[in-house]
Amino acid sequence: MTDPFAPDAKRPPVTEGVFSREEVALANRNSGALLETLGLDITPTGTHYLLSHFDVPLLFESDHVLRFEGAFDAPFGLTMDEIRALPDVTRPVTLECAGNGRIGVSPRCFSMPWAYEAVGTSEWTGTPLAPLLERAKPQAGVQDFAFLGADYGFDKGQPHHFGRSLTPDQIADLDVMLVWGMNGQPLLPQHGAPLRIIVPGWYGMASVKWLTTIEALTTRYQGFQQVQTYRFRANDDDPGTPITSIRVKSLMKPPGVPDWVTRQRWMQAGRVMVQGRAWSGGGVAIARVEVLLNGDWQEATLTERADAYAWTGWQIDWGAQPGVHELACRATDADGNTQPLEAPFDMAGFANNAVHRVTVHVADA
Amino acid sequence: MTDPFAPDAKRPPVTEGVFSREEVALANRNSGALLETLGLDITPTGTHYLLSHFDVPLLFESDHVLRFEGAFDAPFGLTMDEIRALPDVTRPVTLECAGNGRIGVSPRCFSMPWAYEAVGTSEWTGTPLAPLLERAKPQAGVQDFAFLGADYGFDKGQPHHFGRSLTPDQIADLDVMLVWGMNGQPLLPQHGAPLRIIVPGWYGMASVKWLTTIEALTTRYQGFQQVQTYRFRANDDDPGTPITSIRVKSLMKPPGVPDWVTRQRWMQAGRVMVQGRAWSGGGVAIARVEVLLNGDWQEATLTERADAYAWTGWQIDWGAQPGVHELACRATDADGNTQPLEAPFDMAGFANNAVHRVTVHVADA
Repeated sequence: MTDPFAPDAKRPPVTEGVFSREEVALANRNSGALLETLGLDITPTGTHYLLSHFDVPLLFESDHVLRFEGAFDAPFGLTMDEIRALPDVTRPVTLECAGNGRIGVSPRCFSMPWAYEAVGTSEWTGTPLAPLLERAKPQAGVQDFAFLGADYGFDKGQPHHFGRSLTPDQIADLDVMLVWGMNGQPLLPQHGAPLRIIVPGWYGMASVKWLTTIEALTTRYQGFQQVQTYRFRANDDDPGTPITSIRVKSLMKPPGVPDWVTRQRWMQAGRVMVQGRAWSGGGVAIARVEVLLNGDWQEATLTERADAYAWTGWQIDWGAQPGVHELACRATDADGNTQPLEAPFDMAGFANNAVHRVTVHVADA
Repeated sequence: MTDPFAPDAKRPPVTEGVFSREEVALANRNSGALLETLGLDITPTGTHYLLSHFDVPLLFESDHVLRFEGAFDAPFGLTMDEIRALPDVTRPVTLECAGNGRIGVSPRCFSMPWAYEAVGTSEWTGTPLAPLLERAKPQAGVQDFAFLGADYGFDKGQPHHFGRSLTPDQIADLDVMLVWGMNGQPLLPQHGAPLRIIVPGWYGMASVKWLTTIEALTTRYQGFQQVQTYRFRANDDDPGTPITSIRVKSLMKPPGVPDWVTRQRWMQAGRVMVQGRAWSGGGVAIARVEVLLNGDWQEATLTERADAYAWTGWQIDWGAQPGVHELACRATDADGNTQPLEAPFDMAGFANNAVHRVTVHVADA
């Protein structure tokens, strides 16, 4: 398809301050989690964050075939019935969008203006991917496995199916799942039905939805979403480095009740349990969560995590005195990585893991 | 609870042009439908629009009791088991948020900046409400039935549970349902679990979620969400009129494929079927849908609607020539109401039913 009307022409690379109508339209369309559900291990169905680059394809599972193509000695195709007959595993995995927190980065990339909510944990049901790749017998010299989705459209004037790749070493290191179920139900259309992958521990861009094809390549995959975006870049001339594992982060279930428009919080003075979730990438555990209460960073109690790739709960008692308080939470993982107090700069606003801050108004009891 | 920090103090009543961070945060939190699903009768689970004034309450259905209180001669309470044992009915109902289209109204109320997506159709399972009200024996002189939700917070500095009311005449006229199921599943937490009402044909504010109490009143109900908002107002001094029935409206499934950021559409020249949905309030049927194609309003073909309160499908062939096209769709209902070309002004940006416009870039095939 030719492209005589480059849709990128009018898009500023970065912007500041107020938001455009196009950014708001993206926020209408893509949806975030509800922070008040952060007390739960599993994000309620229908509230898991959703970021779709293009239109959600409505696929029929009765004629869906996953094709293993390219540099395989034994390429094959699998119907959904054949895939569901494979050994299955169900595990809770926390996914976060690489663009989560973009709203806090300045100047700001012109894209989906995520604040805090692009994260969620679902119980994914599927089968391990690595044995299927082995069964297709990758040829010597395979450098990448490309995962192609049915979703299609333009970005920066370039038409493409959404696609991502992983190297043979990454496949060996990661517990990639081929997934057809979510929270005990069939995968919903907007989450990739009938088939997607989940790459636990990595930002969400790697977990390709509406999966149609896995292609073995003896060269590096050059798909738009692999090489032209989802890279950390300091400036326009920086070729950048790929975004992979999730950075350590935490969120708070905001205490009290909200004001409808500002979403600031209101409560009476007294003791309250403040709680939330913390997570890091690559299966690394959370070592500690500190919570800013009454001006001091205080240590929260951690709860067991349900899976190496699922978030960890935390909680702490707060004796709330009348006044306006800024609460914050800051996690540190077992590798010693701690959330920064200020947003790290990135050209596209990726992977902002600065601490979550919540304003709470406390009235006399 | 006292309220020493009026959260409304810093909120401008109306604004123009660019958007604030607070509006974007609301758009992150509340979620719209996906226009590409407008070819379907039923909105896929998890993509129905969602507008929550306060936090979503996470209620336990095992101890949930619906209480009929106030000016009833035979007040009672019902557990969820008792409610599910009542005669049940399942019907598809189209709901639309009264704030849908607010983004198109100028100047713009400082609130959730909906574009087009705050609409959806689900199959709701429940029981007719009117017989239950009769069973509780409303006393002579009852003027309102108030429906109170568990959700609680502040608006304009005023703390309240979300609540709405209907008069006895309205109960007699409307097919109000007491609902516990959605698309064949238990109601999801974010849609009002375990129990809500659906007021078919009215904007969504009437369909109270997380329903705890129905109170019969011998005075008019004065709840915040009944008397201080959800009213059409021309200016600050206008007491306004209540918002009730949904205005005639239509939306188009945008043809072609999108650009990621602008969401404008791209396709090759040729014939394409353009389709969408149209609806009106109060069970009024759609009489016609016109589609602006190549500069002319052309008549679309309507499909049967699944229920008096469900939207109607429409479709039309388009011979797309190379160039940039602005498509639009305009519905007329059986009462002769037609969508306006420009957004009607309202202080709070309510009920904007102006035509849906979509920009399509057509390239040489």
